[in-house]
Amino acid sequence: MAVYTDVDTESLDEFLDRYEIGKAVTFKGIAEGVENSNFLLETTQGRFILTLYEKRVDPQDLPYFMGIMDELSHGGFPAPEPVHAKDGSILQDLMGRPAAIVTFLKGMSPRKPSAEQCRQIGAAMARMHAALSETNLYRQNSLSIASWPRLFQGRETIAASLAPNLDNLVTGDLQRLKDQWPEADKLPQGVIHADLFPDNAFFLAGEFSGVIDFYFACNDMLAYDVAIALNAWCFEGRGEFNMTKGRALLAGYNDVRAFTQAEVEGLPALIHGAAMRFFLTRLVDWTDTPADALVRPKNPLEYAEKLGFHRLAHRLSDYGYESASATA
Amino acid sequence: MAVYTDVDTESLDEFLDRYEIGKAVTFKGIAEGVENSNFLLETTQGRFILTLYEKRVDPQDLPYFMGIMDELSHGGFPAPEPVHAKDGSILQDLMGRPAAIVTFLKGMSPRKPSAEQCRQIGAAMARMHAALSETNLYRQNSLSIASWPRLFQGRETIAASLAPNLDNLVTGDLQRLKDQWPEADKLPQGVIHADLFPDNAFFLAGEFSGVIDFYFACNDMLAYDVAIALNAWCFEGRGEFNMTKGRALLAGYNDVRAFTQAEVEGLPALIHGAAMRFFLTRLVDWTDTPADALVRPKNPLEYAEKLGFHRLAHRLSDYGYESASATA
Repeated sequence: MAVYTDVDTESLDEFLDRYEIGKAVTFKGIAEGVENSNFLLETTQGRFILTLYEKRVDPQDLPYFMGIMDELSHGGFPAPEPVHAKDGSILQDLMGRPAAIVTFLKGMSPRKPSAEQCRQIGAAMARMHAALSETNLYRQNSLSIASWPRLFQGRETIAASLAPNLDNLVTGDLQRLKDQWPEADKLPQGVIHADLFPDNAFFLAGEFSGVIDFYFACNDMLAYDVAIALNAWCFEGRGEFNMTKGRALLAGYNDVRAFTQAEVEGLPALIHGAAMRFFLTRLVDWTDTPADALVRPKNPLEYAEKLGFHRLAHRLSDYGYESASATA
Repeated sequence: MAVYTDVDTESLDEFLDRYEIGKAVTFKGIAEGVENSNFLLETTQGRFILTLYEKRVDPQDLPYFMGIMDELSHGGFPAPEPVHAKDGSILQDLMGRPAAIVTFLKGMSPRKPSAEQCRQIGAAMARMHAALSETNLYRQNSLSIASWPRLFQGRETIAASLAPNLDNLVTGDLQRLKDQWPEADKLPQGVIHADLFPDNAFFLAGEFSGVIDFYFACNDMLAYDVAIALNAWCFEGRGEFNMTKGRALLAGYNDVRAFTQAEVEGLPALIHGAAMRFFLTRLVDWTDTPADALVRPKNPLEYAEKLGFHRLAHRLSDYGYESASATA
């Protein structure tokens, strides 16, 4: 939620001259996305989002992210469509930063998702995975299980200061995850969003209307994307899992693309691991963010509490999953 | 530049039920205004700005601010028009805060205003003053000259740490302003915007298109509004006054409503005083804002440098003003 880089009118006008989308009539910084500067741009021809990519995004990854949005929007999945400049390119330079224009998506992010919205986001995610199943785009997941011990190293004391014994619990979790992590090639792989929180999903009149913010997307096990969403959409209060929402999200996905048996068996570890990934990156932000930063880091405790739930869960049915045989 | 209060979808839907403007289709926090939380709200019937008034705004002053916008927009001056709820009221409650919906104005704020934009804003301000000349709305200026010594008290050391001898210079300025301040009843009075910075003005295709953010408006000498704008629009770099822009802004205003002789004589002190008002409130914010605040305070040095220019100016011609006899 921030605008890190301001854009002066002259630079904007010169920038827009590189496109065929008319002249600017509205230009407002918006509180969307925590990594980049986002502006609502209305021109004489329509509405767009202009993004300046800030330090945390590796410019080398941008063609991958923009490529995903391009393929999704052309494949009929509601994602922002990158706008090509006159020279055909999607990425330009503005205020010394990589910049891109994408189409504007209507819709609103649910602050407290309902079970029905959880079902819809599960189904939408399965459709998104399907829409990207033929892509040649590839980017390794830089925040996968292999990176976690390194993120935790040196932050044990801070973890212990957040909650009693949290350092030992996390160390135990990391070992358990290493032992239980599914072999990647046994599970369906593909492009995953990897950050599909309610903030990044839009609904319109009760219906799913789009997904934004693909800047953590990568190639990994598809079920890991489900695991991230389950953590992001189905908890309430202090680490309380809402089984109805969990059941809805898993069923929504499963109705569009049925989980394989290996996925059903692997998902509990993936769900536990997804909570670990967000706990650790928030722990890093919590300790590394200077006090005068524009964005206040999110408290890692929320995900420490979710880890507490996952420690006691062992089967996908603990998250509300009903196998076909059980529901038959 | 911040969103202090988040609004959940359920609360928004319930809030919109109190109006006749349709259902929400887009809702985005925007980086506009530093005192309140602002959202771009698109409904099935149009686009609006929803504002939640935060702590720094006295709820008792809100009917005055909304009344000004109401009178201006109905009087043909491009300002946001407050939207009345079904019960006829302009102010409602949302997330425990006073809240209002106003119409959306197209246009963009100039980051580096041109001389032509300075001329246009001068003329627009004179039209705004004229549009409010018959109003019964009244609110005392709580940041007028009488308040300044109190704002500076206890902050002399901090001032000295910002620039050598700044404490003594400001003390001298305050005495000079007290001596030279025009008698209020000798100058035309009325409703002034009191914060008409480039951020709060919109232009569309090179033409002035509107004024927003009336939350510092008050009743005072009309020329004091010109003095504030001259400080905000006509300086560049480090306290460098652009005489061409100054001339343009003063002439733009004077062309619509000619300055009285008393205003021409009083304006140098008002211009100096306007710089003092923003120097002092920024000095207060600079020292009082906690390090973890969402909004970083503006550096008071910018206005200390403007004070340096004003110390050497004594006549309105020092700011580019050409009297009718001189230009005749």
